[in-house]
Amino acid sequence: MQLAMVGDKFIELEKLDSAYLDYGTFFGDGVYEVLRSYDGRLFALEEHLARFKRSLAEIEIEGVDIDDVGDKVIRAYQKSQIADAKIYFHITRGAGHRDHAKEGLEPRFLLLVTKIEDSKEQKNKGISVITVPDTRWKRCDIKSLNLLANVLARRKAQKRGCQEAIFVDEKGCVTEGASSAFFAVFGDKLQTAPLTANILPSITRQFVLDISKNVGLGVLQEQVKGQDATKADELFIAVSSKDIVPVVKFNEIAISGGKPGKFTKLLINEFAKLVREKR
Amino acid sequence: MQLAMVGDKFIELEKLDSAYLDYGTFFGDGVYEVLRSYDGRLFALEEHLARFKRSLAEIEIEGVDIDDVGDKVIRAYQKSQIADAKIYFHITRGAGHRDHAKEGLEPRFLLLVTKIEDSKEQKNKGISVITVPDTRWKRCDIKSLNLLANVLARRKAQKRGCQEAIFVDEKGCVTEGASSAFFAVFGDKLQTAPLTANILPSITRQFVLDISKNVGLGVLQEQVKGQDATKADELFIAVSSKDIVPVVKFNEIAISGGKPGKFTKLLINEFAKLVREKR
Repeated sequence: MQLAMVGDKFIELEKLDSAYLDYGTFFGDGVYEVLRSYDGRLFALEEHLARFKRSLAEIEIEGVDIDDVGDKVIRAYQKSQIADAKIYFHITRGAGHRDHAKEGLEPRFLLLVTKIEDSKEQKNKGISVITVPDTRWKRCDIKSLNLLANVLARRKAQKRGCQEAIFVDEKGCVTEGASSAFFAVFGDKLQTAPLTANILPSITRQFVLDISKNVGLGVLQEQVKGQDATKADELFIAVSSKDIVPVVKFNEIAISGGKPGKFTKLLINEFAKLVREKR
Repeated sequence: MQLAMVGDKFIELEKLDSAYLDYGTFFGDGVYEVLRSYDGRLFALEEHLARFKRSLAEIEIEGVDIDDVGDKVIRAYQKSQIADAKIYFHITRGAGHRDHAKEGLEPRFLLLVTKIEDSKEQKNKGISVITVPDTRWKRCDIKSLNLLANVLARRKAQKRGCQEAIFVDEKGCVTEGASSAFFAVFGDKLQTAPLTANILPSITRQFVLDISKNVGLGVLQEQVKGQDATKADELFIAVSSKDIVPVVKFNEIAISGGKPGKFTKLLINEFAKLVREKR
């Protein structure tokens, strides 16, 4: 008799809930998005759906109606009635017997609407980060469920009292944060890594680049060397759930006097304006 | 109200089955093993448990009693009464709200006992393989649930009518198969990649090395260059579920006349002997 064991309990295989046979769990074979609402309005849903569509195509999950996904996000968000919400959703290849190259599975959708964590303090005071070697796979442009390297990096950061881990590649250059894009300000130039196969096309990153001119910053899309980051005038990260968060300590070295920098604060204000204006 | 959506259905977040909030799905944050039985007896359970223990330690999942895992495997296998079974099991960090660095979760155990797929034909006729760039993360010595690169590689192989994909690194050297170790025979030398951070310490690989002297093969633990593989006298892969499978076509080029080679067949017989003798 084919059977399963969940924790301590035996179950006949045919009676096992398919949630246990999800290819998301067996292989991380799925892609996801996280977006948020500000004050009762979803932010940048279209951009997230476009990226999600690309991720699905890159890992060859077919037959997903993106408009239907968008409808579900809107319906779930409205039902939640949470002003400032985090919306997580993923689609996995399906569920069934574990088989690397199984065809014809039914994609599985999961969505979660939760209250967003309050990031006011992080925005006001800034956060500390450490660098860790970038051990991730070579297709980090796909927002996939293969995130163990990110988990291990963040755990390491947390043990050192830091709120984010910044990946540094074999050449000693910053790629991005474990769950954020990374930016440095040198003089009146804003520097961040260009979009390559090992960088997630961060939506918040793009908005930051768009609004940078409003605060008088030029843009340089070139990787920051790890050892140069401590010489930056300002550092910050960008992530959908919190938009812009100042970095005031990098590998235990204080940045911009240990306080959020001038341009970072201007960008936070510009971002808030964008959030109010954008529909 | 915090809520979830599974497929088309809304569920209050508190009522959602924790299987949907498994860190295995959110992050691939877990490790696994696959072993098999031959004719009513589990094969190499101790070796698999030792590797599993190491994998758990490497990703810092703590508090798992390995003897208890072993007991569960034995109990489940006995209950199944399947002579030739495949036993898959994994432990994930736990379930809960999605948070990269959450502490204090309860690890989650899943085990599946199924009938093993018949590999007689593959063993007799050999299989075809193609090479694909090794895009995996840099800690493939950990048997983790982050397997999307493996899935994509195997899908590519299948589309080309091949049964396995062989990873080739940036230097053009073979690392291993998408779910197997890779071996080449040149004259009376058996060559396979040494165990580094990017090679799974395959248990079948070790047994193959152990028995190679019984068939008159010397061992060279050095990566095979992709372009040299087609010049090998014989090629084969090794994987727990099928032990040794001859490779008779490599990137569409016939190997050893398109038939399983002499040493490969001898090794298959030696392995069968090992299986009968080992307790």
